[in-house]
Amino acid sequence: MPRYDAPIRDMRFILQEVLQIQNYSNLPGFEEVTPDLVSAILEEGGKFAKEVLYPLNAVGDRQGCVRSDDASVKTPDGFPDAYKQLVEGGWPLLSVDPEMGGQGLPHVVNIAWTEMVSSANMAFGMYPGLTHGAFQALMAGGSDELKAKYGPKMASAEWAGTMNLTEPQCGTDLGLIKTKAVPQPDGTYKITGQKIWISGGEQDLTENIIHLVLARIEGGPEGIKGISLFLVPKYMVGEDGSIGERNACSCGGLEEKMGIHGNATCVMNYDGATGFLVGEEHKGMRTMFVMMNEARLGVGLQGLSQAELAYQNAADFARDRVQGRSLTGVKSPDQPADPIIVHPDVRRMLMDQKAFIEGARCFTYWTAFQADLQHKAPEEGVREKSSDYMALLTPVVKAYLTHKGYECANWALQLHGGSGFTREWGMEQIVRDCRITTIYEGTNGVQALDLVGRKLAANGGRAVFSFFSDVDEFVAANEGNEELALFVEGLQSIKAELQEGTMWLMQNGMSDFNNAGASSHDYLHLFGLTALAYMWAQMAKVALESKGKEPFYEQKLATGRYFVERLLPDGAAHLAKVKTGAAPLMDLEADAF
Amino acid sequence: MPRYDAPIRDMRFILQEVLQIQNYSNLPGFEEVTPDLVSAILEEGGKFAKEVLYPLNAVGDRQGCVRSDDASVKTPDGFPDAYKQLVEGGWPLLSVDPEMGGQGLPHVVNIAWTEMVSSANMAFGMYPGLTHGAFQALMAGGSDELKAKYGPKMASAEWAGTMNLTEPQCGTDLGLIKTKAVPQPDGTYKITGQKIWISGGEQDLTENIIHLVLARIEGGPEGIKGISLFLVPKYMVGEDGSIGERNACSCGGLEEKMGIHGNATCVMNYDGATGFLVGEEHKGMRTMFVMMNEARLGVGLQGLSQAELAYQNAADFARDRVQGRSLTGVKSPDQPADPIIVHPDVRRMLMDQKAFIEGARCFTYWTAFQADLQHKAPEEGVREKSSDYMALLTPVVKAYLTHKGYECANWALQLHGGSGFTREWGMEQIVRDCRITTIYEGTNGVQALDLVGRKLAANGGRAVFSFFSDVDEFVAANEGNEELALFVEGLQSIKAELQEGTMWLMQNGMSDFNNAGASSHDYLHLFGLTALAYMWAQMAKVALESKGKEPFYEQKLATGRYFVERLLPDGAAHLAKVKTGAAPLMDLEADAF
Repeated sequence: MPRYDAPIRDMRFILQEVLQIQNYSNLPGFEEVTPDLVSAILEEGGKFAKEVLYPLNAVGDRQGCVRSDDASVKTPDGFPDAYKQLVEGGWPLLSVDPEMGGQGLPHVVNIAWTEMVSSANMAFGMYPGLTHGAFQALMAGGSDELKAKYGPKMASAEWAGTMNLTEPQCGTDLGLIKTKAVPQPDGTYKITGQKIWISGGEQDLTENIIHLVLARIEGGPEGIKGISLFLVPKYMVGEDGSIGERNACSCGGLEEKMGIHGNATCVMNYDGATGFLVGEEHKGMRTMFVMMNEARLGVGLQGLSQAELAYQNAADFARDRVQGRSLTGVKSPDQPADPIIVHPDVRRMLMDQKAFIEGARCFTYWTAFQADLQHKAPEEGVREKSSDYMALLTPVVKAYLTHKGYECANWALQLHGGSGFTREWGMEQIVRDCRITTIYEGTNGVQALDLVGRKLAANGGRAVFSFFSDVDEFVAANEGNEELALFVEGLQSIKAELQEGTMWLMQNGMSDFNNAGASSHDYLHLFGLTALAYMWAQMAKVALESKGKEPFYEQKLATGRYFVERLLPDGAAHLAKVKTGAAPLMDLEADAF
Repeated sequence: MPRYDAPIRDMRFILQEVLQIQNYSNLPGFEEVTPDLVSAILEEGGKFAKEVLYPLNAVGDRQGCVRSDDASVKTPDGFPDAYKQLVEGGWPLLSVDPEMGGQGLPHVVNIAWTEMVSSANMAFGMYPGLTHGAFQALMAGGSDELKAKYGPKMASAEWAGTMNLTEPQCGTDLGLIKTKAVPQPDGTYKITGQKIWISGGEQDLTENIIHLVLARIEGGPEGIKGISLFLVPKYMVGEDGSIGERNACSCGGLEEKMGIHGNATCVMNYDGATGFLVGEEHKGMRTMFVMMNEARLGVGLQGLSQAELAYQNAADFARDRVQGRSLTGVKSPDQPADPIIVHPDVRRMLMDQKAFIEGARCFTYWTAFQADLQHKAPEEGVREKSSDYMALLTPVVKAYLTHKGYECANWALQLHGGSGFTREWGMEQIVRDCRITTIYEGTNGVQALDLVGRKLAANGGRAVFSFFSDVDEFVAANEGNEELALFVEGLQSIKAELQEGTMWLMQNGMSDFNNAGASSHDYLHLFGLTALAYMWAQMAKVALESKGKEPFYEQKLATGRYFVERLLPDGAAHLAKVKTGAAPLMDLEADAF
């Protein structure tokens, strides 16, 4: 029956053998990340995910969250206790600055832990996940007073955090926000308005909930330039940190939705609630983007993590279920039929998942490592490049990993045949849960537009050109390595396609912005493929060097070969679509649809 | 809010302008299908689908079916009344032979009606849909006595029919069936065993339910060669057609599943139930295949029909929802933002759906028309070719249309942003309902294997070679038509890719069957693309001839151009994957997954 086991061997491979984080002891927080420490964290984290969080995954889906007439919200049975264990275990503090009570470990180690949580119970993981994002925004934009008062409790997740952006009339286009903030003589603001789709807006897990709310200060500029960010606690907090009066905000209802039933998606009503300005007036979007970028990487990771969960169960099913005989002769003569893993098309579904997942894991961790370098590297050049990469690759991680992750979840369901469509096997929940990831924190379409419209052109294309030159350098350094040739040539060819697409965009996207919009989806996918090819080439190199030590390395190479031979061919199709331009999309009048 | 309107103009275009069924009055049943009659059927059918069936679609999803302790099953509110109206309207009789009380109209006309039912309420449509399949199997294999006794009532759908194949230990591999049939002195059989996933196995819509059950006659050959087909009525039927005693079969439980909640998916227990042999002993599969082929076309149509439903609502949403401004300047200055249909990536999602749906509709109707020709054409050559096409293309219609239909439903959900993930907009139900179509009636993997393993090679490849030569003929006849050049060249090039894939399979699939299995999925998709390109070329030709008469024709051409420019590029990727052979898929040991 359904299960989750953290893929610790693969995580260690990426952290210790590919990224070799133990060799960065010159960076703060990296001093102690010995292979032993990392392994211990992964083992303990994996145990927590498997034993505490995963058993609540199906429970959460079936029970969902329930709102009472007094506007309180009950999370599924077991969630409060698991949350308590999470906080007591200090897990949310892994990569938090010691000043805020954290352990100060690298972000990239925290990412591995977050992946496990997200695989084991995505709906649950959103509570601490968003709290961490809100904490980061507070650190980026809040006054010292706000940081001191709310920071430590949010860092440990004793108090939860939420992000309040969406309103009925606006999701993507936040310039349309109507929620009002009226300045008060004491420097606070009264916040009034309705927010929708607020994940964890109300729950019974924490003694306080700290809402970060986008609102418009009365009399401020129109549109996106008049949006400010406010901290609105559910309960007011005294100078001594004590819980005080209830603030004027409450949950007006829960959304009925396709999945992530264990997470309370709330309508939040603010009725003159007391709020504290975070950052400058009218500059709320700037701080909110800190939170959103963090959240976007997290959502990409959710796509990957649900694919991993689905894949593990699909692999089990393929080994256990006997049905039909191998096309090349009976393989299990003592059974009434062969296990379905003998069938090539079943293998195709598994390999598509495996090759994506392992490449995507490396890509995500590599990107998270850029976040560490961006903040901690002593050399300014390294910090700049890492910062460029973070900006450039965040939309790719978010959109590519969620799109493909959802595809993987669907292949895993498909592999189960009719069982996949029934509740008891758990596959259909994964598909339903995973479905949100391509949508929230900016739809994948918005990510693609961010990539082609903003990230590519930033600083004269500096980020993308450094990416190309890093790839070129890798290719040059490994040319002539015959064992690696398949990977190097695959990388070279997909990179050439990406480069051609980039040039096309630079030439045609500026003269007609619709050309950029029309090609954005396929360009992002071409980028995702190239990024994964780059990761696979690096992983293959490491695996070749250790070949023979463990079957793991041979398996890694075989999976990588599948990636090159069976996934990279999509690149040419994406490039062809990039280059059609906008005309085929824009020809019809709106009423012809 | 969500709606369904039958796409009558497009249906008429295909039936009357592309297929020109009114010109086949030499075929029985076609004498009266004047444009007026067809239009009247489509109008009335569309009204029924919109007004009676669609309003029950969400109701069915939310209420689902409920089994009582007495093993009876209640369908959702409104289903019994709608079913009564369906039967009273005579809709199930459209294409039934007049001998059985039918109207004897062409199958291709019935397909248009079936599409409407399936769009408006897929879960509901399965009750009459499977009844029609069971009726066809009875007609193909039953004795005159069985036909006379059960035929007319099943034809009209007064009595429902079901198909009972799956058991816990076997789905795809029916050779593993354990249900037993013990011959009785009176020529009947006692049927004992458990069947699972029986759609409509029990319900409150009809006074009797006629189960077609695969079982093994005691002492018969092992494996698939010992499977016979039995008719097992829920209530015994007297000589005069009267309803008699309850038979020993009952619903042991309902399956909890991802979607199609309005259809009762039953565990069926047969406890020495009286059954009547249909066809010959041990030759049950042959007759069941009649039913399954019919059902497979129907499932392909479900994929298309759910895509259509999703698309209509996505188009509405894209026109209504205002969010952000066009990249090329404000389009709706009187609104706070532009409707999202101005955004190229929103267009991409809509056009992907539209170009697929219109091509797929033509392909399905064209294939259904082959079924008419197969039975009714006076020339033996035409009958043979149509029969070849039916055999060859059934797996393509089933698998390609359900795979892409599900993709379309997902794009429609995606286009809705967060609203797509909530219940109230109806999109998530479409995705959940549609999800089953790639699985049941033979998973898409099984369809692909059927195509490459059986259908391609049949009669020395006669079917596929006729397909190629028909395409070549079309290309030759239209070369030099400049206005059609894009379509003709697109067709020529995708057909060349399919031909190359076919040759590769013929050379490599026989020497190692795993090569055939490994390429089957991509080969089927390449076939689907080619079939749609062939349809689009024919539709474009007709549209060009009528250009200027109605905006419809210009729109058809623009949609077709999108298909050629933006969907055909996938062909090369599929071909590359066909040609990798089995090695990349089969390299890993089973325990490496």
